[in-house]
Amino acid sequence: MSSVWTNNLKISIFGESHGRSIGAVIDNLPAGEKIDFKEILRELKRRSPGNYSFSTSRKEEDIPEILSGISNGFTTGAPICAIINNKNCNSKDYKNILEKLRPGHADYTANMRYNGFNDSNGGGHLSGRLTAPLVFCGALCKQILKKRGVLVGAHISSIGKINDDRFSYKLEENLLNKLSKSEGLILINEALHSDFYNEIMFYKNDGDSVGGTVECAIAGVPAGIGDPIFYGVENVISSLVFSIPGIKGIEFGNGFDCSKISGSENNDEFFIEKSNILTKTNNHGGILGGITSGMPIIFRVAVKPTPSIKKKQSTVNIRNLKSESISVLGRHDPCIVPRVVPCVEAVAAIAIFDLMKGEGKI
Amino acid sequence: MSSVWTNNLKISIFGESHGRSIGAVIDNLPAGEKIDFKEILRELKRRSPGNYSFSTSRKEEDIPEILSGISNGFTTGAPICAIINNKNCNSKDYKNILEKLRPGHADYTANMRYNGFNDSNGGGHLSGRLTAPLVFCGALCKQILKKRGVLVGAHISSIGKINDDRFSYKLEENLLNKLSKSEGLILINEALHSDFYNEIMFYKNDGDSVGGTVECAIAGVPAGIGDPIFYGVENVISSLVFSIPGIKGIEFGNGFDCSKISGSENNDEFFIEKSNILTKTNNHGGILGGITSGMPIIFRVAVKPTPSIKKKQSTVNIRNLKSESISVLGRHDPCIVPRVVPCVEAVAAIAIFDLMKGEGKI
Amino acid sequence: MSSVWTNNLKISIFGESHGRSIGAVIDNLPAGEKIDFKEILRELKRRSPGNYSFSTSRKEEDIPEILSGISNGFTTGAPICAIINNKNCNSKDYKNILEKLRPGHADYTANMRYNGFNDSNGGGHLSGRLTAPLVFCGALCKQILKKRGVLVGAHISSIGKINDDRFSYKLEENLLNKLSKSEGLILINEALHSDFYNEIMFYKNDGDSVGGTVECAIAGVPAGIGDPIFYGVENVISSLVFSIPGIKGIEFGNGFDCSKISGSENNDEFFIEKSNILTKTNNHGGILGGITSGMPIIFRVAVKPTPSIKKKQSTVNIRNLKSESISVLGRHDPCIVPRVVPCVEAVAAIAIFDLMKGEGKI
Amino acid sequence: MSSVWTNNLKISIFGESHGRSIGAVIDNLPAGEKIDFKEILRELKRRSPGNYSFSTSRKEEDIPEILSGISNGFTTGAPICAIINNKNCNSKDYKNILEKLRPGHADYTANMRYNGFNDSNGGGHLSGRLTAPLVFCGALCKQILKKRGVLVGAHISSIGKINDDRFSYKLEENLLNKLSKSEGLILINEALHSDFYNEIMFYKNDGDSVGGTVECAIAGVPAGIGDPIFYGVENVISSLVFSIPGIKGIEFGNGFDCSKISGSENNDEFFIEKSNILTKTNNHGGILGGITSGMPIIFRVAVKPTPSIKKKQSTVNIRNLKSESISVLGRHDPCIVPRVVPCVEAVAAIAIFDLMKGEGKI
Repeated sequence: MSSVWTNNLKISIFGESHGRSIGAVIDNLPAGEKIDFKEILRELKRRSPGNYSFSTSRKEEDIPEILSGISNGFTTGAPICAIINNKNCNSKDYKNILEKLRPGHADYTANMRYNGFNDSNGGGHLSGRLTAPLVFCGALCKQILKKRGVLVGAHISSIGKINDDRFSYKLEENLLNKLSKSEGLILINEALHSDFYNEIMFYKNDGDSVGGTVECAIAGVPAGIGDPIFYGVENVISSLVFSIPGIKGIEFGNGFDCSKISGSENNDEFFIEKSNILTKTNNHGGILGGITSGMPIIFRVAVKPTPSIKKKQSTVNIRNLKSESISVLGRHDPCIVPRVVPCVEAVAAIAIFDLMKGEGKI
Repeated sequence: MSSVWTNNLKISIFGESHGRSIGAVIDNLPAGEKIDFKEILRELKRRSPGNYSFSTSRKEEDIPEILSGISNGFTTGAPICAIINNKNCNSKDYKNILEKLRPGHADYTANMRYNGFNDSNGGGHLSGRLTAPLVFCGALCKQILKKRGVLVGAHISSIGKINDDRFSYKLEENLLNKLSKSEGLILINEALHSDFYNEIMFYKNDGDSVGGTVECAIAGVPAGIGDPIFYGVENVISSLVFSIPGIKGIEFGNGFDCSKISGSENNDEFFIEKSNILTKTNNHGGILGGITSGMPIIFRVAVKPTPSIKKKQSTVNIRNLKSESISVLGRHDPCIVPRVVPCVEAVAAIAIFDLMKGEGKI
Repeated sequence: MSSVWTNNLKISIFGESHGRSIGAVIDNLPAGEKIDFKEILRELKRRSPGNYSFSTSRKEEDIPEILSGISNGFTTGAPICAIINNKNCNSKDYKNILEKLRPGHADYTANMRYNGFNDSNGGGHLSGRLTAPLVFCGALCKQILKKRGVLVGAHISSIGKINDDRFSYKLEENLLNKLSKSEGLILINEALHSDFYNEIMFYKNDGDSVGGTVECAIAGVPAGIGDPIFYGVENVISSLVFSIPGIKGIEFGNGFDCSKISGSENNDEFFIEKSNILTKTNNHGGILGGITSGMPIIFRVAVKPTPSIKKKQSTVNIRNLKSESISVLGRHDPCIVPRVVPCVEAVAAIAIFDLMKGEGKI
Repeated sequence: MSSVWTNNLKISIFGESHGRSIGAVIDNLPAGEKIDFKEILRELKRRSPGNYSFSTSRKEEDIPEILSGISNGFTTGAPICAIINNKNCNSKDYKNILEKLRPGHADYTANMRYNGFNDSNGGGHLSGRLTAPLVFCGALCKQILKKRGVLVGAHISSIGKINDDRFSYKLEENLLNKLSKSEGLILINEALHSDFYNEIMFYKNDGDSVGGTVECAIAGVPAGIGDPIFYGVENVISSLVFSIPGIKGIEFGNGFDCSKISGSENNDEFFIEKSNILTKTNNHGGILGGITSGMPIIFRVAVKPTPSIKKKQSTVNIRNLKSESISVLGRHDPCIVPRVVPCVEAVAAIAIFDLMKGEGKI
């Protein structure tokens, strides 16, 4: 496996869902950065299961233990390793699914990849649980970016048929601050809260699940960040965002919508404001030619519905290659979109941190 | 800049649109592979400008010169460097736009990134012209993959409001072979040819441009290819696909559509056919948990409308920071989607080659 | 810091000498390899302090906790993370040296590198203690290599003025097996044991320390392993070997001696034995043009004398920039050469594993 | 092959000795650096064959063609690709050695590595000729480093039994400037010129060859550069230095000599001079714990005698596996040490540039 990401930052993710511990090593952060541990805990709590009536009832405290790299509250410049011990594993729930391939899951593909030696309990190394160390790394980057004036915030832009407002052209700092501190159903238009809640409960009560989209903004990034051809902002963000299980698409700026319109509609005209060059609209999502324009970076990701559902599906038993039916019991979120929000913020922060560091801006 | 991509393959892209030459070095191909040079030329011709009435009238022969790594028609195992000399540069067309920032272009962002030292003629290193070496590398990978039973084919899935058929569940080898050899408006449903042609001409005649989408399929990849967390198939393809200028989104399988539906609708049930484990549908686009399932890999990308348009737009002169209006003359495609098709095939081939090589399958 | 090494294997080392834990993540080992944990413990014991009268009296049990990647005794294919908790820290020994720069140590350079935020207790992340996770990774590689017929063994080739025998042309499997299981003063010529012991004790009793050299052999590597130009066997081994603190030189085959002789003396003539192409001598140390010849790979490293000595030296106090004298008390090996032996074996195993994996031989 | 080196800089080397061209792509140099092309030519001339009576009579002009990345004399920030076309190939000289394995050469190992598909003419991609693009890259780095006050200079420290003086503790800027501009037999003690010349001619006249050592100094590097554990200065320099064919060893500071002495002899005491912390001696060669101390970086490499000699040797014919004798005619340097000098300077410059860039010092 290559659970190691290396550009200017180096991140190594390890652990299995029901193993001893999960964790991450993040290397190449600057020395001397003051780290707010409570802020990290808050980020992990946003991602953690068990906070909502519609979320999985598995409870994990997700309190990371810092093994290295932070001393007296400051980064030492050495790699930071953090682990989270798995406490509340309930592997017996999974017993019946080890042989029966769960549709929409990686049971089959991982089995083929690792010749059956992979730890399949709870999804093993491919579990969504592995986003906890990712959020840990992102939380460090977010803190350090914030001190440089860079803010990252995301919200649920849709679940099933319900849509939140999108980030407007005038993206306010207050909004990003609020989003990045919110938990649960994180929305721009909070009046829609019950609509979203009901949409999820509708599927939950049906023994089913539902997908959605998450929109993320990064504000305060100076113009001129990003490397063509292979290390543009889109390349780097997307190479990281697909590390979040269940994401099946990403679009920047007005994304797939730009495919339906004309150049004169899609181009963002430049203008001058207080000696700064800005664009009148932000269809480009803050990125032109892979390089930041100074306008907010905007992207959206598509999250598939949780594949684990109670509804009966037909499948194959991998041991005897016979057809069987399956009903996935266990403890599963009917919709993982709310928990994907902090994960998306995390990878956005990691990507931008990495690119700014590469150009000596951190 | 980091125009170097390294995983199991190592690719280095160089050159500027109106410079001496553009080219690529590709390293870590196996020794002893017979290379069909005509096939490479055909791929480059598919990408090259000047073939259609709606395409830019700049003519480049795009015949690569192999400087190393191929001897007597076989790969030697040494890095392959190929260059394409720029012959038909017409830099005077660009004179008036060096100061005026073209909306939707990277003029401003590249200027900020390189402190004004970047070669801005014709877009310099950020030009779409740099996809020619990318197609060269992809052409090598496609040939070698084909000998291992892996086929890559793409088509225009939409331009403006016109949509082609999508790849069906029963994806036939013949179709992929046909697509990968086609030129011009590459479509599954050829009856739509004139509709697509007219859509492009409508915008061209209006001094405008139009965007679209490209759909790509990769068939014959064995199950079990791809590395979680950071080197899943989606991560690798997307990290490469954004090296093609103008791409603003990517989705795998049913992509953004999966965000609107339920798990029971989206999950692909497994079944057995001649001892093979297959899925009844292919919403997952051949990838589960970042790893191939053996079903065809399917993805679509969003291509923005060409930013260079004759229509008058307002902008800023970067020298004196005054507002100005701009009408981009030069020679520009009113729609780059047809030329993006072979580029998408190229990066798909590079990505799959890389991942298969990492697991000893090449 | 970049304590991450990535080629075909990916290794991330973390931890600080007196911190919570040290450890490593190793990624890209094959799934399904049976791991002998006792063998790993034996390797760590060979490296650990406190075994000999001349070694530091700091006692660490160095029992690694496997957090991930091994299940039921087999590799799962997921990254393996192992940690070793620091128990026997005695930071007060170091109190007086935090300000006074220890000659020959990295106190000053690390301070400059990390603006004084580095954890300097016991050397922090730059401590020789960080070779324990390196030995852990090497122990995994050694086991897996051994099953493929590759043996790695090293010995003390000199300490001060005392020299052991060198590996002979006829390198026997038994010798390598014996060396790789030995502890303490690992020598080819065991009759020299007391000479070596006395040499070390001479310096220890003088409040001083002494350097030496270690010679390593790798047998059983097939011909044709190694990538020119930058990933030849010498490049890869040397890029890893300098991760062991105190190493100041490396030479392959007859190394620096080849600089004094003629081509006709240095060239190794080829001959045929049972259809195998061998060389009559092994001045090339098993590597020609960066690629293995099938002959044993031989290299030697120079180890500097432990910089921590009781003998009074003059130095500078970094706080007030005044001259001072220093006598380093603490617990220090008078000679680290015996403990470098298993470290050198470890990096040799990692390097060869990596290169063989890159060419599909693992 | 992996002729790609990537850290903060990315370098890709390509070409075969008797192929169409050799060259390099270097990526991630800063934009806006003024490049002195004459200086590059001078560096290439220092390395080129045919300048001395004892050197090979093959004449190559070695004038690089810049294909990209430099415009109007300034770096554009895009990758710089340079090629050198091979003009004076005399492959017939090599005809008789394609089957007979030349002792000390990579004929056999490359054949095994590339299944016989490698281009073996003149050594192909493994030829010493490939150091020309390396020197090109180094020449760019040297120029840019010099503007930041960093000087790189090397000299022949020994050939056979003849030794030049070593760099003294008081390393003068003038000396480094002089060395880095010298050609031919580059020595500190020029009175030894004829001794060195005679030593080489003695072996040449005997149809034989001779090895030697090269010593390199890098002055002006600030303290605090270098990353533990895997990217210390020693790791990075050595990972690059072995890309020069024929190098079999490297040592830093007093290197292998430190293995014979005590800590009190080897440690360099600190003192204060004009508020700077310096060491009274420089046994550590400017590197402690992998990090620069601000003292000059000093290292030496061992160069083996040219393996191509007229003297008759016994070998194997790889086609029929029969024993044969060989006398290598062709055009070969009896001693490559003089031509290794600029190559060593080149890799030293690349390594230090890379590390300084990683820490935002370039």
